[in-house]
Amino acid sequence: MRHILVSCTLLAAAPALADPLPSWNDTEAKNRIVTFVETVTDPASSDYVTPSERIAVFDNDGTLWAEQPVYFQLIFALDRLADLAKEDPSVLSSDTLKAAAEGDLQTVVQGGEEALIEVVNASHSGSSVDDFQTAVAAWLETARHPDTGLPYDKMTYQPMVELLRYLRDEQFKTYIVSGGGIHFMRVFAERAYGIPPEQILGTYGNSDYTEVEGVPTIVKAPGIAFVDDKAGKPVNIDRTIGKRPIIAGGNSDGDFAMLEWSTAGDGPRLGLIVHHTDAQREWAYDRDSHVGRLVDGLDKGPDMGWLIVDMAKDWSRVYTGKQ
Amino acid sequence: MRHILVSCTLLAAAPALADPLPSWNDTEAKNRIVTFVETVTDPASSDYVTPSERIAVFDNDGTLWAEQPVYFQLIFALDRLADLAKEDPSVLSSDTLKAAAEGDLQTVVQGGEEALIEVVNASHSGSSVDDFQTAVAAWLETARHPDTGLPYDKMTYQPMVELLRYLRDEQFKTYIVSGGGIHFMRVFAERAYGIPPEQILGTYGNSDYTEVEGVPTIVKAPGIAFVDDKAGKPVNIDRTIGKRPIIAGGNSDGDFAMLEWSTAGDGPRLGLIVHHTDAQREWAYDRDSHVGRLVDGLDKGPDMGWLIVDMAKDWSRVYTGKQ
Repeated sequence: MRHILVSCTLLAAAPALADPLPSWNDTEAKNRIVTFVETVTDPASSDYVTPSERIAVFDNDGTLWAEQPVYFQLIFALDRLADLAKEDPSVLSSDTLKAAAEGDLQTVVQGGEEALIEVVNASHSGSSVDDFQTAVAAWLETARHPDTGLPYDKMTYQPMVELLRYLRDEQFKTYIVSGGGIHFMRVFAERAYGIPPEQILGTYGNSDYTEVEGVPTIVKAPGIAFVDDKAGKPVNIDRTIGKRPIIAGGNSDGDFAMLEWSTAGDGPRLGLIVHHTDAQREWAYDRDSHVGRLVDGLDKGPDMGWLIVDMAKDWSRVYTGKQ
Repeated sequence: MRHILVSCTLLAAAPALADPLPSWNDTEAKNRIVTFVETVTDPASSDYVTPSERIAVFDNDGTLWAEQPVYFQLIFALDRLADLAKEDPSVLSSDTLKAAAEGDLQTVVQGGEEALIEVVNASHSGSSVDDFQTAVAAWLETARHPDTGLPYDKMTYQPMVELLRYLRDEQFKTYIVSGGGIHFMRVFAERAYGIPPEQILGTYGNSDYTEVEGVPTIVKAPGIAFVDDKAGKPVNIDRTIGKRPIIAGGNSDGDFAMLEWSTAGDGPRLGLIVHHTDAQREWAYDRDSHVGRLVDGLDKGPDMGWLIVDMAKDWSRVYTGKQ
């Protein structure tokens, strides 16, 4: 028999409840987000949602961090090819790969999907997951964005980082559901967004289970096994999470199906689109963009009750890495 | 400014710490499990593991619940085929399917993989995930095991349910990684094991994202997209969890790669095999079994430091549903 005595007295002079979203201006967007969260977490509300169903999913490129002039992972791929070629020039076995290693993005993009897959295979396969992630981490340390001069993982959106934290504080489970690669994102997502590896869904390549120097190891193989984009997003969420999210955020038509499926569920739902309207602090693009093309979300989203976040108007600050 | 005053006094007469594994006999197996958990959760230990890395993965069939005379999901498949045929006899479009709907397991098994896939396609596709799961739930309510007379979800192993709870109490995240189907397992796993849908990895079929009566819906389609068995298990864990587990439990050679990969990581690791040795209370089978065949685990496991759990000797109770 043990006796336990616990006694505690807390006397705290607390400030008025802190603003959970300080980088959001006091506009309708912020109001709608806070009202939604307060409603679904209020046990007295008829729209109360039990914590286990508080699933929030977000795209990454263009939603949680920037995606111009091209997806950052593609820039990594080119840099990595150049690195690999330094050790073994024979990896540059085609004109496309030679152009890629020279940073000639235009040639790669003009080569279409075939060229992109060639670049991804050459830069993303042939090493263990651990070694690949070590290379990503090293790249993030040194690479700088051509326009902002910032490390890429400082080009995360401060308002969205605050939103993720706010949701977790309100017992939401936050997930990334991105067209980006899982092994790439997992290197920085926990530090940058507070989202652990097991809550990161994305595109993935083939893998081999094999021995490397006698140690059982997962090795990244050529070929893409699953593309986490468009209808692939709800399918992947169903497979991996097994619940229909009550909050979904994206920025492009690649996210349309995810928002559509999430907000079609019963009860309160929040669909959110980050609209890139800020040519001063970030970029302004939507319908005609080669990256993050947004047509359906603008045409149909508002009628479906989705919140279109106007970056220029609704955010007082953009990047985590720049005030 | 708000003032918050919180005062609490707890005076409790607590019993000596309760045994976390009451259905395990006081044998070496229990001792090894408890010692491992106490070591990795002790901040003063050199083998301390931070909570975020406390990942524990378990096979389901034969590890967390029984799997004789055949996988329970196959029995469900046959019953479901019979149900579907009542509404529309044309679903029984082959001799294999006719035999299956009559419960003629032998004909199905003799037909090999082709027959199995035919049965799975006919019984597991063509409906929404929601409707499929409603059917599974209804089946679990009424179906009874031919030998024990128990509902299938009462043939979970009480010692393993206790182990899962114990691990979660010690801040482990517990996962299922099974050859069984994700949509099937998720119907009962949270209630039976305390494992939520997002921590259930398994085999899955193709899915279509489509509209059903105007509502965006995931519909189960014919064809198997991923088989979560053998090398597929570590590959799936890497894709979905993104961490190498520190505890892995299984019962057959289909789990060998998962245990091998998990226990090959740095630091303390626990591999555990449930050895079916109990012909009195359950079944006794290993090397020659058509279900849950276990050869490599017995031959190589002990040398790799894996714990071979002797069901007859190490468990004081078997089923959750029977004392």
